[in-house]
Formats: sequence, structure tokens, C-alpha cells
Amino acid sequence: MDKNTKDSIFVSRGFLWGPSPEIYRGVSGFYDFGPMGKLVKNNLENETRKVFMKYGFFEVECPILMPEIVWKASGHLERFTDTMVKCKKCKSSFKIEDAEKKCSSCGGELTKPEEYNLMVKTKVGTDKDMFLRPETATTTYLLFPRLFQFFRKTMPIKVFQIGKAYRNEISPRQGVIRLREFTQMESQIFINTDNEMDFPEFNRIKKEKVLLLPHKLKKPVKISLEGAIKKKYLKKPAFAWCIHITEEILKKTGVKGYRFRQHAPNEMAHYADDAWDVEVKINGDWVEICGVHDRTDYDLKRHSQFSKQKMNVNKEIPHVLEISFGLERTLYALLNDSLVMDGERNLMKLPENMAPFQIGIFPLLKDKKLESLANKVNEDLSRNFRTYHDISGSIGRRYRRQDEVGTPFCITIDHQSLEDKTVTIRERDSMKQERVKISELKVNLNEKFF
Amino acid sequence: MDKNTKDSIFVSRGFLWGPSPEIYRGVSGFYDFGPMGKLVKNNLENETRKVFMKYGFFEVECPILMPEIVWKASGHLERFTDTMVKCKKCKSSFKIEDAEKKCSSCGGELTKPEEYNLMVKTKVGTDKDMFLRPETATTTYLLFPRLFQFFRKTMPIKVFQIGKAYRNEISPRQGVIRLREFTQMESQIFINTDNEMDFPEFNRIKKEKVLLLPHKLKKPVKISLEGAIKKKYLKKPAFAWCIHITEEILKKTGVKGYRFRQHAPNEMAHYADDAWDVEVKINGDWVEICGVHDRTDYDLKRHSQFSKQKMNVNKEIPHVLEISFGLERTLYALLNDSLVMDGERNLMKLPENMAPFQIGIFPLLKDKKLESLANKVNEDLSRNFRTYHDISGSIGRRYRRQDEVGTPFCITIDHQSLEDKTVTIRERDSMKQERVKISELKVNLNEKFF
Repeated sequence: MDKNTKDSIFVSRGFLWGPSPEIYRGVSGFYDFGPMGKLVKNNLENETRKVFMKYGFFEVECPILMPEIVWKASGHLERFTDTMVKCKKCKSSFKIEDAEKKCSSCGGELTKPEEYNLMVKTKVGTDKDMFLRPETATTTYLLFPRLFQFFRKTMPIKVFQIGKAYRNEISPRQGVIRLREFTQMESQIFINTDNEMDFPEFNRIKKEKVLLLPHKLKKPVKISLEGAIKKKYLKKPAFAWCIHITEEILKKTGVKGYRFRQHAPNEMAHYADDAWDVEVKINGDWVEICGVHDRTDYDLKRHSQFSKQKMNVNKEIPHVLEISFGLERTLYALLNDSLVMDGERNLMKLPENMAPFQIGIFPLLKDKKLESLANKVNEDLSRNFRTYHDISGSIGRRYRRQDEVGTPFCITIDHQSLEDKTVTIRERDSMKQERVKISELKVNLNEKFF
Repeated sequence: MDKNTKDSIFVSRGFLWGPSPEIYRGVSGFYDFGPMGKLVKNNLENETRKVFMKYGFFEVECPILMPEIVWKASGHLERFTDTMVKCKKCKSSFKIEDAEKKCSSCGGELTKPEEYNLMVKTKVGTDKDMFLRPETATTTYLLFPRLFQFFRKTMPIKVFQIGKAYRNEISPRQGVIRLREFTQMESQIFINTDNEMDFPEFNRIKKEKVLLLPHKLKKPVKISLEGAIKKKYLKKPAFAWCIHITEEILKKTGVKGYRFRQHAPNEMAHYADDAWDVEVKINGDWVEICGVHDRTDYDLKRHSQFSKQKMNVNKEIPHVLEISFGLERTLYALLNDSLVMDGERNLMKLPENMAPFQIGIFPLLKDKKLESLANKVNEDLSRNFRTYHDISGSIGRRYRRQDEVGTPFCITIDHQSLEDKTVTIRERDSMKQERVKISELKVNLNEKFF
């Protein structure tokens, strides 16, 4: 890989490795999170979790493997398909939208298009057909009767799930943008229809402004949620509240340059009442990183029919409003947008709460006294901050490594530190350095971060 | 399910639901974490993560699906098997150790025993055989060349992974003790052989005592790690250090009554040099919840051969020392051990860091002023603690609910609170109540917890 691309930095700095397993040449659509990537992934999951919990959502975790009847009921066995052609000569397969009239790898003749189901299938026991879920959402819907009891029959019910999902993409070729195994962060509100329109929590956030691209407009418009309801860009206050939560997650995780784009009526699932994508630009193209969907009563109605269990509440089947983040795309958008390569240095401008480490700690030189003091400073700060103690290589190299992984502040312990108990703090973006007393480090850093 | 069993409390209080998906009658070996179970699971993962990170381990995340060659190299395709018989009459399948001479469900005649591979198989693309990993460990080993570069060729290398794994158990019937889909928390040290014996970190922890049951002894012995090395119960200081880390995780997560039991030589994998299980009693039986294994150079040697990649460091293939926790078993042991049902009340004595909530907050009665003050107290405390604000049902029912999910302290806001700005704090285990000024709540609670 080219040493000067952003992707090569993501590899060399331990963010993303793949396709996985690399030592066996890899399988397209599978990636590993290295030590830095995993720290950012955990931060992204935890910040999202915090926002959902703040708004009263509870987390659940369901199995990835589910039996056939679940996917019959959900509609995935019937409709979760792509159209595929194969090359008669070299046997390569292509998704129809990618395919030319001739094979793009060998020029051979192509077969007629065929429907191709994207579910990943397996068996358990000796003969039970099971499928790897294509989304976390369906597995959460199935809990509705349990959740309704657990929440003592109080509606609406707010839940979320963070976990793996699978799509058997025919020929994935876009790094972590199109994966066969990926992570979703999906929340649902199970809600009655009158509550969708009369939703008290909306009042607290209705003045918030958001960048919307309704399907009838050609350009996005910055408008308050209340204004969007008045203009009928958004139909329901409860749905507008979901847009607000989605935006709060984007802000907390530092994703920038996003817009909410509404699906045109012919773009939506047949049962959906409204659908908006969060899109960000990645290398010039708008890429969907999240969907906010009004799924009506479709899901619970189908599962009620197929399972023969009553799911009515107040004489109707509850509706589902859903927020669905693709984690890897969100993470990649964030890394890609944060990394600045200006020729002078590579600088990962991650926000403090997303960076793998908040603070790097270095002794200036190989010297037992400096190393011992650096150790002490690290032990103390690591109780309150995510620190990284690095003693190897020149000080310049150590700064560069921390710049590339996005560490906002680096502390250096030098000979003066031994004498007057001060250290230097270097700020990542400006490279400005200040001298601070060790005894005042915690207060100083707390002010910087919070 | 019997309303008076511990398992029924785990269901009604939203810890564990299953077999999943319940509305479709479930598939054996699959379970859901409800809202309370998921909070405990997150706590268990995070406390384990913190211990690993404290000792210098970095986290990675690898795909669950891996191609066939990985499992050829690891030995799983050949050796990861159980022996099975089928009933000729009713077609039920049984693991050989469970089977009688006749079918236990219908009395029919049984087939001859057959070897049965426990891997869960699938395909991606149109024809690529893939397997759901039976452990996280192998997927971590495959990263060794990348990790070696990332850590700038400094040995030993310490990593861990938390994630799902799969075993196609033939007839799982023990709730979450024997699952087909489960969560592992596994750490590895990649280490050179001289470093295994000369391991400086050992000196800091060698005086710590641990309960060991070496295969040569009939009863467990409480002994210092240093003593265990001297007596040759443990061979290597680096391995003893792994035992210490394992015990620190058990202590932090509140698991009690455990012992370390050494495998007899005929019990170990052919390549292993040493293996110890952490066992706890669950309903009278010793159950393995964790393994600490000295895997020698087996794994990297095999993957080096099959991938044709050099993995030598200092003229030898690094060895692997491994800690492997089964999360669901650990969690179940913890819940089962923590729940006390004395006829008076059901009390979940979870440690504060494992409980879903640290603090319950209740207005005494349905009253706008009380509710508004309770809201304020909750908003304030939720910045520093995991709180749950409950306004429904009698105060007695609300205490009982929090007792059953293990909330250590409940705060009640009553009419006196409006007058003198005090609230009552009720301690879960003793049920003792004290009156505390609202302005002093944080300090008071911090003292209780830390």
C-alpha cells in the first residue's frame, strides 16, 4: 500500500488491518481492528451508549444466529437481495450495478442477471437452518413481549442494541465501507400512534436546528425541528426527536459535514412511512452512515402473525421508530476526516473523547531518573485519564507517533523536571508548549478536557 | 418456569431470556440479555478490560467468520469434535457422555457412535467455505506479524479480545452454562522462552497467595505464587503472573468460592505445557469458568507453516500464555451466587461495580413537588453514578425491585425533603436508613462506593 495515503496510516498506526485474515491473504469484506482502532471503536460505542441512555433507552443483546422463521417473518428471505451476473469465462461474480456488458476482469461474456439473497446461512444441531442476522433490529423486535412486561406495560418502550451483522455482498471492494461482517448501533422506540404526534419530550428540543434535505427540495435547509414539522418536512414530533438524538450522537462523536437526506417515496421500503439517511462525504462521495426510519407497525405485525402471539397495546400494534448507525462507516468517516497530511506532519485531529489516548507521557531521554519520574506521573494520571507512556525512540518520533493517533496532549519529563517539579505540556494541533507544575497537572488537564 | 427459582428471578427482572428467540419457541443454546443482564455484562467486560489494560494488554477485534485454512492450521477441523449417537426411532441426537444404551426420550435403539465436528460452517460469496470461530484466541494469533510491527518488535506482546464464539453443541440443555453462541474474554502473551522464566513483573506480585489444586494433590492449597514456583506446582514466573491477573479479574468482578485446578497430564491438549481451570460451584457442581493455558509455540508454528510467513523472534517461534474467560458462565456464577432468597425477600448481593445501578431514586408518593425534586436529585447524581429513577408502584414494591436487581443504595424523597432538604438513603443488605442532606449526597455516596 502507498505509504502516503490515509489508509496506509490507518494500517501502520494500528487502526484497521485487512482484508482479514491478512496472513492467509484475506477475504474481501472482513477487517480487523488493531489496538488503536479498537480503542476508537470502544469510544464510539460508549459515547453512543451514553446518549441513548441519557434519553431513557435501555440496552439489550440478542444472538447473531436466528432460525429461518424469523427471516421469513421479517421479509428478509424474500426481499433482502441483490441482482448478480457471472462471467462465463473466468467465473467472477458481479453485483449488477457494477457490471459492464462484458466481464470487467477478463472481458468474457456474462450470464443473465439472477436474484441473489444476501443472508449468510448455516446450520446448528444436525439439521436446523439458521441465518446470521443482517441487522440487529429484527432480533430486538422479537423481545417486544418480554420488554413490555419488564417495563410494566408502560409505553413508549425505548431500547437499543450494539452488535455484529452480516451481508453476503457479492464482490465487496471498498475497504470498511462495504463489509460482509460489520457492527451496528440500532435503537428502537415502540410507540402508539397517538403518542407519535403528542410526544412531550419534543418540547424540550424543538428549537434545535438541523440540516435537512427533504426529498422535495434541491438544497439542504437549516431549520428548527419545530419549523420542519410546520413545513411538513417531518411528519411526527416523536420522529423529529429521533433526528435530534441522532444529531446529538454525531456531535458527541465528532462527525462533521453531515446532512439528513430524506428518501424519495420510491426509495423507501413499501411499509415505511418516512426515512432519512445521515450522509457524510468520504473522498468526495456522499456515503450513508446512519438511517432514521419510521417503520410503522410492519415489524411487530409480521412477528405477531408468524409467532401467533398478541402484541397489541391499546387496541393497536405498536409502531417502530428506529435509528440505525453503521459503526465502521461512522468510524472510517471520522478517521478519514480527522487525519490531516500537510506534508509537514500527519495530524489526526480526533476529538479528545474519541482519541485512543488523551495524554502521552515521555521521559525526554533514556535516563533512569527521568524514566522513574515519568512512570510516577503516568501512574498518577492514568487513574483519571487514558494515558500512554512511551519511552522508545527520539522525542521527535514519539511526538509524531502520538500526532498520528490523535493524542491531544503530550507531557515531557526533562532534567528541569527533576529540579523544579515542572513538566512541559505540548498541544497536538498548535504544537504550543507550556510548563506546568506536576502538582497542578490534573487540574490543568481537567480544564483542557472538560 | 417456577416463580420461586433463581432462574425465574433472572427472567422476570430482565437479566436472561431464552432460549432465544422466545416468541418462536427458541433454539437450545441461544439466550438474550435483557436490560439488566446487559448492564451487568457491560460491567463485567469493562472491569476485565480495565485489569488487562492496567497490566499493559491492548485490545483487538477480529472477524467472527474465518476461512477454512485458518481452522486447518489451528487443528480445529481435525480435533474439535464430540462423539454422537442418534436414536433410530425418534431421530434425537445425543452427546456420547449423556447417552444411555437406549434413547433417553423414547427408549428406541441407538446408532453406533460417530465423530461430530463442533464448528459452525457457512459460505460467503457464492462458494467460499467459512467457519464461525470456536474461540476468539485463534483470530488474535493471526495478527502476530502486524502486532510485532505495531509494538516496534518489542517482546513480550500482550493483547486481548472480547467477543462471540460458537460451538455446535449437539444437545445443549443447561441454560447459559452450555451455549452454542457465547462470549469469550481471552488474553495472550506472545513471549520468548527465556523471558517466561526471567519475568521482571513477577517480582511485584510473587508474595500474593492463591488457592491452587495441583493435579498431584488431593486437596487445594493456599500458597504464595513464589511458593508455588518453588514447590513446582507452577513452572514459570510468567505463567504465575497470568494466574495472578486471572485472580485480580475474579476479585474485581466479585466472583467468589473459586479454585485453580490443574489439568492432569492426560487431560491437556497434546501441545500444552500446562493448563489450569478456574472452577466455581454452581448448584453443587464445579463448573469451569476460565482457563489459563501454556500453549507453547504450537499456534504460531502452525500458522507460520500454513501461511508460509516467518514468525521467528530471536531464532525461535514465540510461545503463547493465555487466559480464557467464558463470559456467560462467569456472569451466571456471579448472579447465582449473589441472589439470596430467604423467604422474606429476594436480595441480589452484587458488588457495587457489577450491579446494573448504583443508586435507585424514588419520590415517596405521587406528588408533583416530590417528583420534581426527585428528578433534580437524579439529574445531578446521574452525572457521577449509574442511577435509576423509579416513580411507579408503592415504595415497598420499588425497594423490592431494586433489591432483586442488586442496587446497593436507594434514595427516597419525602415531604420532609421539601422542608429541610434531606433525603433518606437505604442500604440494600442491612435495610438501614439514614437521613442525609441533599447537598452532601455526592460526598456521602462517594465514601460508600470508593
